[in-house]
Amino acid sequence: MKLTDDQLRQFDELGYLMLPGVFSADEMDAVTADLPRIYGLEREEVWRESTGAVRTAFAAHRYSEPFDLIGRHPRLVEPVRQLLGGDVYIHQYKINAKAAFDGDVWQWHQDYGTWARDDGMPEPRAMNIALFLDDVTEFNGPLWIIPGSHREGVLEAGHDLKTTSYPLWTLDRETITRLAGAHGIFSAKGKAGSVLMFHSNIVHASSPNIGPWGRTIVYLSLCHVDNHIREFKRPEWIAHRDFTAIETAPDDCLLRLPRATVAAE
Amino acid sequence: MKLTDDQLRQFDELGYLMLPGVFSADEMDAVTADLPRIYGLEREEVWRESTGAVRTAFAAHRYSEPFDLIGRHPRLVEPVRQLLGGDVYIHQYKINAKAAFDGDVWQWHQDYGTWARDDGMPEPRAMNIALFLDDVTEFNGPLWIIPGSHREGVLEAGHDLKTTSYPLWTLDRETITRLAGAHGIFSAKGKAGSVLMFHSNIVHASSPNIGPWGRTIVYLSLCHVDNHIREFKRPEWIAHRDFTAIETAPDDCLLRLPRATVAAE
Repeated sequence: MKLTDDQLRQFDELGYLMLPGVFSADEMDAVTADLPRIYGLEREEVWRESTGAVRTAFAAHRYSEPFDLIGRHPRLVEPVRQLLGGDVYIHQYKINAKAAFDGDVWQWHQDYGTWARDDGMPEPRAMNIALFLDDVTEFNGPLWIIPGSHREGVLEAGHDLKTTSYPLWTLDRETITRLAGAHGIFSAKGKAGSVLMFHSNIVHASSPNIGPWGRTIVYLSLCHVDNHIREFKRPEWIAHRDFTAIETAPDDCLLRLPRATVAAE
Repeated sequence: MKLTDDQLRQFDELGYLMLPGVFSADEMDAVTADLPRIYGLEREEVWRESTGAVRTAFAAHRYSEPFDLIGRHPRLVEPVRQLLGGDVYIHQYKINAKAAFDGDVWQWHQDYGTWARDDGMPEPRAMNIALFLDDVTEFNGPLWIIPGSHREGVLEAGHDLKTTSYPLWTLDRETITRLAGAHGIFSAKGKAGSVLMFHSNIVHASSPNIGPWGRTIVYLSLCHVDNHIREFKRPEWIAHRDFTAIETAPDDCLLRLPRATVAAE
């Protein structure tokens, strides 16, 4: 799981990289088997849409064994280490559910914009690596990315506290119109088990899901250990304060999960 | 502009037909030149989203010369005459704007469900023919259609008065999940100048538009003259009460529009 020179060049130029088929169906089954239990939890980390449907389960590595393994999986951690040049820790861990019919919009934003403003993260030496737990199609709210927008640095943003249940630093319409006019939009679609990496300054959004198919994506926001956050305004389960370097699990860890545990859910 | 046997078979089986490149760019320019004027009108026919952006301009053939010609254009009227087997009148005329960033959802529904319940239209001998005034892509709220759903007849529906500014008889989630599970979803994308015909019982919807590109589609809802509506609960500019058969305009009518008129907008 080492990125090739071509892949490094694409990431540098476009700010994202789509890697299909990184995990097998068996591996995905071992992980998704724990979702119904997680979505049923009454914990502050499990954030809901205004309709009650789960929007995001934060820090799921702390209360789910399969999701703990995802957070330490070498196929997710190693490419980020390679791109960021060294050890990384988990700054944020999200399961974003985008429920059928109910899944709400994620407004246009840059992740590092929030990490800098809210968490005092010094540099954009952090990034997302996202794992598709479901097939992501044009019909269930794929991520929309503006290619090359990471080169703009941190853009001006406003703190949107109203549009959805989750506060977000969002970009204005003129900026989106200008950037999408220049670069177009890439819709990150792919089969379950695919992986999407994107630069922390990439401009992205996702539509509400009006379709009958949910889609769940896990986002690991990994940060170089030297670049850890300096401010602690957000809850520690949203912006983590444990800066310990990730020790990766064995490559076949998901297949070694006891079947009994999975079946018992 | 006569539908082939293959096209008739496809319409019968799937309930829709996509016809690319029916109108030229010059013809579309002659029509869209009048949109800014129309969107600026303070008339009851011009319906707005909660944000103030135009959602629908009803009955635009009555206050716009190019849109009057669209409503009588042989390339739109003849295929419907062919499918419905005789003379047709305009039951409803809509310009649906789906503005960039602001364009709101159209919930899952069947048009004939509304025409039957609200307007007392006897039979589904009426249908939509839609003309794309902009390129419609996955990024600006294309129409989503469930192929073959017209064979279900009129499905049970509830009157949704809350979701958007426009009241609509909408289908429940179980029905959409069942139908989309069986038949999938077709996203009606195409270049400006393309035409989409669909059966009045086809189940369809469209997403909110979170992207920076608006898209305008004109919908002619044409009804066989014998099948005219019997009840008059809705305003006459939404459900028309003039059942006169359409007399088509010449095929090149849009190109004969005085340039001065267009340029003067």
